[in-house]
Parts: sequence; C-alpha cells; structure tokens
Amino acid sequence: MDKPTNENPENINSPFDTFNPLEPQEFKRQAHLVIDFLVDYYRNVENYPVLSQVGPGYLKNRIPDSAPNGPEPIENILHDALIGSHPRPPRSSRTPYWIGLGKCSGYQSTSFSPEGGGGVIQGSTCDALLSTLVAARDKTLKKIGGNGINKLVAYGSDQTHCTFRKGAQIAGIHRDRIRAIRTSKANAFALSAEDLRVAVEADVKSGLVPFFLCATVGTTASAAVDPLGPLGEVAKEFGIWVHVDGAYAASACICPEYRGFINGVENADSFSFNPHKWLFAGLDCCCLWVKEPAVLVEALSTNPDYLRNKVSDLKKVVDYKDWQISLTRRFRSIKLWILLRSYGVANLQQLIRRYIKMAKDFELRIKTDKRLEVAVPRNFSTVCFLISPILIRGENQVSDDQTWINNLNAKVLESVNESGKIFMTHAMIGGVYVIRIAIGGSLTENKHINLAWEVVKEHVDKAMLLAA
Amino acid sequence: MDKPTNENPENINSPFDTFNPLEPQEFKRQAHLVIDFLVDYYRNVENYPVLSQVGPGYLKNRIPDSAPNGPEPIENILHDALIGSHPRPPRSSRTPYWIGLGKCSGYQSTSFSPEGGGGVIQGSTCDALLSTLVAARDKTLKKIGGNGINKLVAYGSDQTHCTFRKGAQIAGIHRDRIRAIRTSKANAFALSAEDLRVAVEADVKSGLVPFFLCATVGTTASAAVDPLGPLGEVAKEFGIWVHVDGAYAASACICPEYRGFINGVENADSFSFNPHKWLFAGLDCCCLWVKEPAVLVEALSTNPDYLRNKVSDLKKVVDYKDWQISLTRRFRSIKLWILLRSYGVANLQQLIRRYIKMAKDFELRIKTDKRLEVAVPRNFSTVCFLISPILIRGENQVSDDQTWINNLNAKVLESVNESGKIFMTHAMIGGVYVIRIAIGGSLTENKHINLAWEVVKEHVDKAMLLAA
Repeated sequence: MDKPTNENPENINSPFDTFNPLEPQEFKRQAHLVIDFLVDYYRNVENYPVLSQVGPGYLKNRIPDSAPNGPEPIENILHDALIGSHPRPPRSSRTPYWIGLGKCSGYQSTSFSPEGGGGVIQGSTCDALLSTLVAARDKTLKKIGGNGINKLVAYGSDQTHCTFRKGAQIAGIHRDRIRAIRTSKANAFALSAEDLRVAVEADVKSGLVPFFLCATVGTTASAAVDPLGPLGEVAKEFGIWVHVDGAYAASACICPEYRGFINGVENADSFSFNPHKWLFAGLDCCCLWVKEPAVLVEALSTNPDYLRNKVSDLKKVVDYKDWQISLTRRFRSIKLWILLRSYGVANLQQLIRRYIKMAKDFELRIKTDKRLEVAVPRNFSTVCFLISPILIRGENQVSDDQTWINNLNAKVLESVNESGKIFMTHAMIGGVYVIRIAIGGSLTENKHINLAWEVVKEHVDKAMLLAA
Repeated sequence: MDKPTNENPENINSPFDTFNPLEPQEFKRQAHLVIDFLVDYYRNVENYPVLSQVGPGYLKNRIPDSAPNGPEPIENILHDALIGSHPRPPRSSRTPYWIGLGKCSGYQSTSFSPEGGGGVIQGSTCDALLSTLVAARDKTLKKIGGNGINKLVAYGSDQTHCTFRKGAQIAGIHRDRIRAIRTSKANAFALSAEDLRVAVEADVKSGLVPFFLCATVGTTASAAVDPLGPLGEVAKEFGIWVHVDGAYAASACICPEYRGFINGVENADSFSFNPHKWLFAGLDCCCLWVKEPAVLVEALSTNPDYLRNKVSDLKKVVDYKDWQISLTRRFRSIKLWILLRSYGVANLQQLIRRYIKMAKDFELRIKTDKRLEVAVPRNFSTVCFLISPILIRGENQVSDDQTWINNLNAKVLESVNESGKIFMTHAMIGGVYVIRIAIGGSLTENKHINLAWEVVKEHVDKAMLLAA
C-alpha cells in the first residue's frame, strides 16, 4: 500500500462512507505492534543515550503541517512517532496537527490562526475554563488593582455548563458575582446579547467590573448555540474576555457545512473543544486556543530553578507547564496525532455527517409520531424530545400540569433505560423535563437508531396506556 | 501456581529481594492478554446490557480491603478487574486498595484512617494543592465573610514546590500574601516552626488572616523533611489548614522503618503523595487524603440536573467530581490497584529499600572522595553533592567566590549529562549550586550506580585539572 500524501486526497482509495473506526481484528494487530515496539525498546534501552539527542524544533520539521485527508497505515505513523531517528517519542503537547485540526476546521481564517494565538491540549473543559478565567482575572486586576477581586463579575447563561461556575469559584470570584443569565424557548435557549447587555450595564452601575463571558456552542442540555457575533460586540464594548466553550459541538466544524455555528469566534479571547467527546479521541483531550498566550502564561507561570534548563532559558521552547493548571503534563497530543493520521480528515468528516444523519432520522420519527414533540430545534447529533403536553392536554384531558407531564416523561426515560437495550439521558430545560438521545458512539449504526426508536415507541405506548 | 492469600504472606515463594518489575517477555504476555480481552469485549459488546447491572457497593464487597503482601498472577487480577460477573470494569476512583495502601503505610493509626477522612486520586500535586487551598479558603471565608479573600495568607518555605505558589495564585490568593519562609543549612533546609510562628504573628498583627500551610515531606531540591509535629502545633493555635505534600518521599513510608518521617501527620488537614513518582504507578496518580471531606465537597460541588441520577440523589455513592477540579474523571484507581496486586506490598517495600541502599552507596563514595562534599543530609534516595568549596579554597587556592564554585559545579553537571551515560539534575539550595542524583527508575541496578560514580569521577578529574 502506497503512503497517501496530503496533496492528493483523491488518490486515496479509502471508503469514506463505510469507514469502520474500530474493527476488532485490526485493532488487535495494531495494539500488538505497539506492545512489541515497547518491549523491544526496553530490551535495548541500555544502548540508547540517556538524554534525547535532538534539539528544539526537531519534530516540527519532521511532520507535515496539516492533517492528511485520507487514512495512513499504522506502520507509517508508528515509524514517525516512535521508531524514527530517535527512539524516544518527542513529548510535545502542541503537535502541529493541532494546527492542522484548526486548519481543517476553518479556524485559520480567524484570529485563531497558528500565527495569531496559541494552543495547548488540556484534560477537560474545567481545566480550560479555569485557566482562562485566571488569565482574564489577572489581566483585569492589573488594570483595577490587585485588591479588586471582589468586584469582578463573570457571565454565562442558565444553560452554560456547571463547570463555568465551578471554575469561577475556584478562581476566587465571589459566588454572588457569577451570573447565570436566563434563556428562553423563544431564543432556543441561547444567550441573548441584549440580555447580556442589560446584566452588564446593571453591574457596571453598581460599581462592579464585568470581566468574563462564557459563551457556548452546543450547550449540554439541548446543544443550543449562543450567538457569538452579537455577544462578542457587547463584550468588546465593556472589555470582557470571551471564552467560547465548544466542548461537544465544535467537532462538527471540521465539516465546512457546519462552520457557520462558530461565526463570530474571531471576537473571542479563547476557545476550547473536546475531541474526546465527539471526535474519537480518548478521554482527557481538551483543545484550548487563546488569542494572547502571554496573558495566560503570566497568570500561570512558575520558574523555579530546578525546572530551568538551557533551552528553556533561551526561550527556544514553549513551556506548556505555564499554559495549564498542573505542572505535570501527560503526552496528550499523541492520541490526537495518531487519530488524525490513522482516520484522516475525510473519514472524520464522514463520521460526523453520519451521526448527524442518524440524529435527523430519529428526529423525523419523533416528528411523525403525534404523541411526541421535539423539545428544541436540533443543531447537531443530539435530539431532545418529550411526550407532548399538547396531546395530553388536548386529546386525553389527563392533565396540563407541568409537574405531572415532567414525571410522566421521567418514568418513560426510566423504563427505556431499564430495558438494557439503549441508554438515554434527561435535562430540565426551562422547567420542562426532556429526554435526550446523543448519537456519537464509535459503534453506533443505523440499526441502533431503529432499535432506539422501537424501544421508545414501546415505552411511550405503555405510558400512554397507564396515563389514559 | 496457587493464588497467594493475604493471610499467609510467608507462604508466597516470591523472591522479594530480586523482584524485577519490568521483565520484557512477561510484560509482553500480560499486555497481549489485556488487548485480547478488549478485542473480545468489543466483539461481543452487543450481547451485554447497555447499563451496568450492579449497584453501589458492589465492588467494595468483592475485593479484599487490604493489599496483598506477595504478588498475584495477572490472570487473577484481570479476572477480578475486568472479566468478573459484569463485563464493564467498575469505574470507581476510590479503590479500597487506596485504603490498603494507607494501611500498609501506617496511616491507620492516625486521623487519616479510612474511618476518619476520605481519599481521592487526582492527577498531580498541583491539583491536590489547589483543591485543598480552595477548601481551606472557603472554610475561612465562611468565618470572616465572603469579601475577605484579600486578607488571606498562605505559608510555605523557600523549599516548598512552586506548585504551592501557583495553586494559591489560581485560588485568588493575593500574590503579596503567599509567603516563602526562608530556610537555612542549620535546619537542613526544613521549615522551622519558630520561623512560621514569627511570620504568622506578624501577619495577624497587620490584620491579615493566616489560613493555609503547605508542609513538605521530601522537598524537591534536597528531600528535606519539614517537622510536621511542631508546625502542626503552631497551625492549630491559629486555625491554619495544614497540607502535607509528600509527593516523592512519602512512598518510603510503606516501609515501617521510614514511617517516622511523617510523624505529626495526624495534625494535618490534608495529605498528598504521588505513587507515579517513586512507587511505579504511571503518570497522573496523586493520592489525596482530607480530614474533613465535607469541606472539600462544599467548595467544589456542582449539582446540575443533567448530572443527577437515582443513586446520586440517594447519596449512595460518593460523587468524586466534587472532590477535584475537573468534573471529568479518568479511571486512575485501576493502575494503582493492578500495581498493588501484581507487585505485592513486600516487593514494593523491597524496591524502596533497594533504591535507598543504592543512594547510600553513592553517598558513601562522595564522602570518601576528598574533592567532593555531600551538600545536605540524605533522607531518602536523593543525594545532593558538589565539588567541595573547602577543598578549592584550602588546597588549590583557586577561589572562595561562591559564584565561581557554582559555575564550576554547573560545568561538571553539564559535561556529566553530555556523556549520554547518566542523567543528573541540579538545584540552588541556600545560594549553593548542588548536583542531584535521584535513584528510583524501575530499571536501575547497582551497575548503574557504579557507572554513575565512574562518570562523575571522570568529569570531576577533568574539571579539577582545568580549575587548577
């Protein structure tokens, strides 16, 4: 098999539409290859020099600066990663492939280009949010004086992930100054820029200092998308740091047709998303971009003597310990690097499209069943639905009490999950209990969606019988 | 091979004194076993129920509550961990083996018993310090009022790891209120309780609020041990939370003869150490004990609706997301669990003793070479030494200038490391540049210590020739 090149994606005879990311026999073969490499390495370890013999920049010059369109054989990848000219895998966390991922997501047209800001792979959104909160906090305290921490106000919506509040609390922001601005069904539970302005103006009037906004692309409960453009305008006016949390949904932006969801990201100061959520990376992989790395580094840097060395003193390397909470760094980039090369961009795009198509199919069935209702507009591969209150009110005259309807839906979800056949989750959105199906498992196929629908129908049938 | 039992350690025919923790052929066999298990699991995944069918407490009842003295065969361990009655590995992070580790370290005689506080495995000391700083901060703010954050003072010594300052800064403690109390050679660079008292009293006099002390067992630079007993007395008097950072050295306390180093830990509010440093665990394994888990949980808890479920509502499970920074949890306990069972306590103890013995041997050679000097008393497996300034001053009359001596030692270290045969590090301790050798690599044997000594001698010879 010829090694595919990035330049000629059409040369690759990869079946993008039928790509199977986890074929057991092939997984076994690849895993055994890696194990055997490790064993050979340790058998010969005494023959290698104790310290790496390569200098800063060595790796960057060895690998392409964009991800391949098609998959590459594991042998090539291992050769580059492990068996190359030096036996020790280079332990950088800012793989150029992260940049390649940025490029394939269309970020290079924004200020989040490799030339502008900088990127680091952290463990979770909470790490990323806490890091940027601390950077924004210290940037603002520099202006208003170090004792002003109690004046700082951070903003999110009532749909923002709880990790935002947790991060702000850890950063020492006063609990009374962490705002969760209310959203509504009218705005599809996205944060309204006008509501943000009202909240910010009220705080400024009270002598407080707005300093941070967490906007979300794909909220946890319903995958709502906050309008980055208008929110960014308000934030800019008041000197507020904007972080965009795209934890789950931003993975879809590797497909051109979904890039519109992050329009306005060029106004943001930082942006994070988790390839471990919807892009097949293993857990503990949160990509964070910041517009001004110097601000992040100033907030998080430490320079004890025992961590200094020649290359760090010459500033020839980026010390990623100063870009995150912990000083210890796991070798997180390698899983993303191997993922991008072994899948290829085209397959990743096709997988994203396949999940969204399955979600659309499921949504269509919900829409065609009169007893059910899609709770909020579907943006990605998550469908939120419920047994329709209109139906219950209108036809069966059972109840128009929201608590009763919520309990009914909770019971349906419980019995669905007790079946052991599928697993769905729930959320409370605007006081309404909704059932959520999120499609993105690496083994999920159309047949599972069919099964899910059969199970849902069966348990809705039962519930309606009991409710009648 | 019979399965060894915990009750009869003398029955085990394990060669504790020659135990090899990384025999390549055996590693290969075990790794292939695990891979094959995973492959079989995914091949049959459709036959399993989607949700775990076991309830809270299931795991705790299945496994012994203390670590075995001798090693167990990997087949038994995998059977219990993975292939047992349920195909999904239980994802608890608070393995009873953590408790077992506590027991074998002698902690059960202190307030750090399983019955008292609680434990969690985090990623790094910075995570552990930040978590406890935030808990202590919020506990104190509850007393003095939520706006008092700028009054809070945190204490460490000039030998405390920089992660303490970093953690305190992240937690919003004012940079001017993070104290690094000076240590001296007279105290072997340990933090003096008297000096702490002086600093605390001065701060109280100024209207500030002392709230946190980071004491260290085995400092980074020289493995100094802060006197936990006397420090704890001072802290108690002023209501200061004491965290004990035993990152590297506390692993030695699994041997009874080294337990004295943590005498006084019963006065501490929290304690952490990293089995990934000196106890063969993979990176990202920091064990944290807290005396009052409720305080930690109050500072770090979040309860969004989408993370609630039946068992969490009934408080039948411990939600470890509230015991750490991130909500996401890696399955960190399994590596410790497999480690403890596959090595056994006796082998772990013997390995610790073997490293300390090697360090002693190396130290003895330094002592017998008149050109060299042991810089600080050796406590564990780290030896700090330098080319003796007395010698240079007294015999060669070259210089008594500290900068000159420091540069000479720096040059020796540089040439030692450039040899590619061994790797040593440095530290500045009380203005003196010292060379450090830390022994603890899983493949390190006596022959490597001999080699290290030969290399050091060779480069000292050269340096003395040049300096003469």
